[in-house]
Amino acid sequence: MKKLNIAIIGQGSMGRAHSNAYHQVNHFFETPYEPRLKVICGRNRAGLEKMAATWGWEEFSTDWRSVVERKDIDVIDVASPNYLHAEMSIAAAEAGKIVLCEKPLAISVEQAVRMVEAARRVRNLVWFNYRRVPAIAFTRRLIEEGRIGEVFHYRATYLQEWGNDPTRPPGWKLQKSEAGSGVLGDLLSHLIDTALYLNGPIAEVAGMMHTFAPGRDVDDATLLLARFANGSVGSFEATRYAVGCKNRKTFEIQGSKGMVRFDLEDLNRLDFLDATDERNEQGGRRLLVTGPDHPYAANFWKPGHIIGYEHTFIAALADFLLALESGAPFHPNFEDGLAVQQVLAAVERGAGFHPAGRF
Amino acid sequence: MKKLNIAIIGQGSMGRAHSNAYHQVNHFFETPYEPRLKVICGRNRAGLEKMAATWGWEEFSTDWRSVVERKDIDVIDVASPNYLHAEMSIAAAEAGKIVLCEKPLAISVEQAVRMVEAARRVRNLVWFNYRRVPAIAFTRRLIEEGRIGEVFHYRATYLQEWGNDPTRPPGWKLQKSEAGSGVLGDLLSHLIDTALYLNGPIAEVAGMMHTFAPGRDVDDATLLLARFANGSVGSFEATRYAVGCKNRKTFEIQGSKGMVRFDLEDLNRLDFLDATDERNEQGGRRLLVTGPDHPYAANFWKPGHIIGYEHTFIAALADFLLALESGAPFHPNFEDGLAVQQVLAAVERGAGFHPAGRF
Amino acid sequence: MKKLNIAIIGQGSMGRAHSNAYHQVNHFFETPYEPRLKVICGRNRAGLEKMAATWGWEEFSTDWRSVVERKDIDVIDVASPNYLHAEMSIAAAEAGKIVLCEKPLAISVEQAVRMVEAARRVRNLVWFNYRRVPAIAFTRRLIEEGRIGEVFHYRATYLQEWGNDPTRPPGWKLQKSEAGSGVLGDLLSHLIDTALYLNGPIAEVAGMMHTFAPGRDVDDATLLLARFANGSVGSFEATRYAVGCKNRKTFEIQGSKGMVRFDLEDLNRLDFLDATDERNEQGGRRLLVTGPDHPYAANFWKPGHIIGYEHTFIAALADFLLALESGAPFHPNFEDGLAVQQVLAAVERGAGFHPAGRF
Amino acid sequence: MKKLNIAIIGQGSMGRAHSNAYHQVNHFFETPYEPRLKVICGRNRAGLEKMAATWGWEEFSTDWRSVVERKDIDVIDVASPNYLHAEMSIAAAEAGKIVLCEKPLAISVEQAVRMVEAARRVRNLVWFNYRRVPAIAFTRRLIEEGRIGEVFHYRATYLQEWGNDPTRPPGWKLQKSEAGSGVLGDLLSHLIDTALYLNGPIAEVAGMMHTFAPGRDVDDATLLLARFANGSVGSFEATRYAVGCKNRKTFEIQGSKGMVRFDLEDLNRLDFLDATDERNEQGGRRLLVTGPDHPYAANFWKPGHIIGYEHTFIAALADFLLALESGAPFHPNFEDGLAVQQVLAAVERGAGFHPAGRF
Repeated sequence: MKKLNIAIIGQGSMGRAHSNAYHQVNHFFETPYEPRLKVICGRNRAGLEKMAATWGWEEFSTDWRSVVERKDIDVIDVASPNYLHAEMSIAAAEAGKIVLCEKPLAISVEQAVRMVEAARRVRNLVWFNYRRVPAIAFTRRLIEEGRIGEVFHYRATYLQEWGNDPTRPPGWKLQKSEAGSGVLGDLLSHLIDTALYLNGPIAEVAGMMHTFAPGRDVDDATLLLARFANGSVGSFEATRYAVGCKNRKTFEIQGSKGMVRFDLEDLNRLDFLDATDERNEQGGRRLLVTGPDHPYAANFWKPGHIIGYEHTFIAALADFLLALESGAPFHPNFEDGLAVQQVLAAVERGAGFHPAGRF
Repeated sequence: MKKLNIAIIGQGSMGRAHSNAYHQVNHFFETPYEPRLKVICGRNRAGLEKMAATWGWEEFSTDWRSVVERKDIDVIDVASPNYLHAEMSIAAAEAGKIVLCEKPLAISVEQAVRMVEAARRVRNLVWFNYRRVPAIAFTRRLIEEGRIGEVFHYRATYLQEWGNDPTRPPGWKLQKSEAGSGVLGDLLSHLIDTALYLNGPIAEVAGMMHTFAPGRDVDDATLLLARFANGSVGSFEATRYAVGCKNRKTFEIQGSKGMVRFDLEDLNRLDFLDATDERNEQGGRRLLVTGPDHPYAANFWKPGHIIGYEHTFIAALADFLLALESGAPFHPNFEDGLAVQQVLAAVERGAGFHPAGRF
Repeated sequence: MKKLNIAIIGQGSMGRAHSNAYHQVNHFFETPYEPRLKVICGRNRAGLEKMAATWGWEEFSTDWRSVVERKDIDVIDVASPNYLHAEMSIAAAEAGKIVLCEKPLAISVEQAVRMVEAARRVRNLVWFNYRRVPAIAFTRRLIEEGRIGEVFHYRATYLQEWGNDPTRPPGWKLQKSEAGSGVLGDLLSHLIDTALYLNGPIAEVAGMMHTFAPGRDVDDATLLLARFANGSVGSFEATRYAVGCKNRKTFEIQGSKGMVRFDLEDLNRLDFLDATDERNEQGGRRLLVTGPDHPYAANFWKPGHIIGYEHTFIAALADFLLALESGAPFHPNFEDGLAVQQVLAAVERGAGFHPAGRF
Repeated sequence: MKKLNIAIIGQGSMGRAHSNAYHQVNHFFETPYEPRLKVICGRNRAGLEKMAATWGWEEFSTDWRSVVERKDIDVIDVASPNYLHAEMSIAAAEAGKIVLCEKPLAISVEQAVRMVEAARRVRNLVWFNYRRVPAIAFTRRLIEEGRIGEVFHYRATYLQEWGNDPTRPPGWKLQKSEAGSGVLGDLLSHLIDTALYLNGPIAEVAGMMHTFAPGRDVDDATLLLARFANGSVGSFEATRYAVGCKNRKTFEIQGSKGMVRFDLEDLNRLDFLDATDERNEQGGRRLLVTGPDHPYAANFWKPGHIIGYEHTFIAALADFLLALESGAPFHPNFEDGLAVQQVLAAVERGAGFHPAGRF
């Protein structure tokens, strides 16, 4: 096993999810690398100390720049607030490090372009972890095998409710200066990455952004109509005001040969309708995507024994490490992150709404 | 019981659904009127003869104009292709008849305005039958009682698949000359009527219309973003290319105090989440809207004994007859039909898409 | 059309459901008979008068015996409390009438045997209406076509909650003298008839009957383990104490080639899993059993437009009238009702429980 | 942190699940112990070497007895085939070790009694991990708070399909000599432990055991009717012949104040119906048991971010370690395992069926 020395910048929930992935990756996958948790960087010393103790980081630091310069570090994992992704990732890439960056890649296309540029010489990843949900990877396989046929409709939502909680302290995600945007970068970015992965490029968009909370400077809800390059039409909605929904990321695809439906709150399942079945036997099949013969099923538990949120990070890391060894391309990388950023920017430009009527 | 002599113009599936309603209304409701099925009008003599025999119409006729003039007819029920609604309804209203008209009210705002004008002197109804789905009427009650609170999101789809069936004979619904539009008038009109009923006026829309089938001159799919006058944001999609979906008319509303979700293919159920429940006890409640204490539950069968599609027509007719007797207002009437028409027209004007980006 | 003069004995909810079927049968089916609603019999004059007016019965009577003797009556429909089924049906059969009897056929095997005997010379039906739920008829077709393979498991419940409602007036269903039993005859009889229809004869049973309400002399809950003649094992439960369940009649069958699941509260759907699909594509298919190519789908509405409880009576009556004309056998008839009765009696004999342990 | 030296006996899927728990426990919980993975014991040297490498066991051994005698070992974790549980656990207890034993505790009551006896002096646990499913722990809390009221019905199934797979190699679970029984010990034991946890002691049982596969000497399906000490009635079914079901462990409880339903394949959800809600607002609430205010929610991820199968072992271990430190009682322990064993034995004694009838 080759040792791979990791430094992470970020001590929040993503710091936690990534730390877990480093510990777990070789329990479930056979990679040639042994991740070593060297340094955790962040702004809050007390928090860092606790994170380091809990997750086994050897050191902690409040000076990420010095860590990026360290010779003994192989990987920089950027899990900071959005506005810092570009600066940190570029510094890491210029120092020759492998760079793993949380989503959204950046807060502007301009930043993302520079990041792609800087990262050309190094292996890189964007943590759009949901591509590694087994049901989503399986959807991709179904599409590639032609089981959905010509796609007509793509429909996606990401519904959360916490934007409407007045008791919640305003963190960086609600500040434009730190987050860049609201649900656009936080939630819609996930929807767009999944859509590009499953249904290819988006040709046109028309969007609508809305802020419900008085005085807030980021979008609480962003909606979008789209045309894909493959001729299908799309609809997207991301919101933090969907009372009753915790983390409902869904998509639904209808094509000439079938349909799929997915909901992240039920991530071990996929609804698949095969429109080539007999007419009276067609119905959404509730697949429990835990094997046999499903993506990653052999890595985790037996069929019927479900996995959770954290496993998507583990599988993404595993795939990355295997690609690192073989030299094969890895996705989603910074270029994939840029493609998402371009769609988000188009939505922002197009938003403000195009009134077609007023009554 | 006062006798009410009915003539219907239309021999298709709506002719059938309305005929059933006339027979059944007094089996389940106590109205002061006894509908008498006098004349069925249409273009196809053989079909008319069979319809008359099956459903007990005393006579049939291929000359609707002469029927409209008959003194012994009290009610003209217009269930013809869309492009004839205006002419027939106006003639009937001018002859002093009660007019019941299928949806969409018309194929243009201009027609609808004239219909409203002509029908000022007579009682009238538009067959937006889904307002009488018990679960939808119950949703309205929940909203009026403040159980949903301030509405943030309204999201609706009407998904059918038959537009993609190449074996299907092209009927009038696929001809612009007879239908006026595709899903816009056929399916989106239902979505908009339900939205206006539940969430009030729509202030702005941006739409997208799409035709998948080569050579077809009506829209196969129409999508829409909207802002409602109450400050909520909306998303609508109607399509005949949603492979795997037979008649999936859905809505989903999130407000400050709760959420509701509905699916017409499961019309006896309503998902209701009460966000004032304890935080750890909040979940979409699967209400079986068959009583006790639900709209129309006392009229049909015992709790847990479900009703079907046809009952929405029966309940609409019953409410209309009761309003006819009492003189109380009835909705949806021609003015409600016009309001829908105005939104549809705005979508048509706004469609063609507003590209916010191209990649 | 041949006129068929009907007399019904019963003015409760079954009287209502049957009356509706007589009115509706020729609207949806083409039978050679025109049912004429001649006389409704019962004990409560005021109620009878109202029922006759609402449902169009020409006369009403509190003397069922004299009605049974009338020459002008062709059909006696017995919808009285259970303890009267035998006496009335036998009298009707002996008078040469066609006899339609509500379920359970009788309150004892002895009665049922006499009924079968008396009815040998006349056409007869037992109102186990659920055989005509399209999803149940379709299940039978799937089984006959071998799509489920060798059956291993049959599992059925009938869950209601009203037994636990202390505000409810004690009707005849809670009196052993009138009902014969509690859920055994009322609910378990339905489960057993469906089971015999779908899975064939039952070879052995072990049961448990329980009464929760103090002082009540009928069973509130009856549970059952069974072995079928085909080698499968079964489990049954009927109860009126399943708080939260209005009318949840379910079954679930697992065989070597697939699985089906059904719930009466969602009667337009059937879950069908085809175990010969690819291993990673097997999942319960949510069939919407409203056509195309489903039982009775062509008779009612278009695909996706659901039907309700009452349609099962209409379809049962239609099938009976068609069999009446053709001379073909009809099921479920009195012999089928007797077969159910024999299982119920075995459960009663076996109940009282067989303690296998006590701790 | 106090070091806790672990030795595990077992190299199969339970060995894997437990190994994971030792690694993960302090990532999600704050316990005072640091588990050290010292030795893994088993019969297959090659497999042991790989397991040790993957999961970080310092040593491996094919001689469990010598390991049990080692002074430096604090904990013996018995994850061997069922027939060895008693011998190994007793040896470990007699050596003064903390003993953690997989379920079922034993293959006979006699064994279980000796195990309880031997383990009186040491802390012990039975790996009935499902008590730590958050939704199950939350059900217990609802019951304790009186939210279900007086319980009427308890209904549970454990449905798997692999018994019917002819391509599957016959492992120890299909040999009576090693497993003691089929689904009785493997699956029904889980159902019974959950039932005792949620609904208290079982007073009487009547069972039925069945083997479908020719020549197999263990039960493929075991069904059970029961009376609980609290007056409720129960139904249980465990099978490996439920084609279409991977790991469907369910329960459903109805009481005077509400209902709960659970399915292990959807373990993050609980259906809870509050029968004290308004009558027209009662419906099964689909709770997503991922916080806020749910058991273990604060330990894992944010609300809406689901957990999987493995987390039940982690939480069980955490609770055990906290009890170890505080001296508080821990459940399920060997006495709980014995209670399950007594019910299983009663079922075995009672099985062979009590025919109540034969037709």
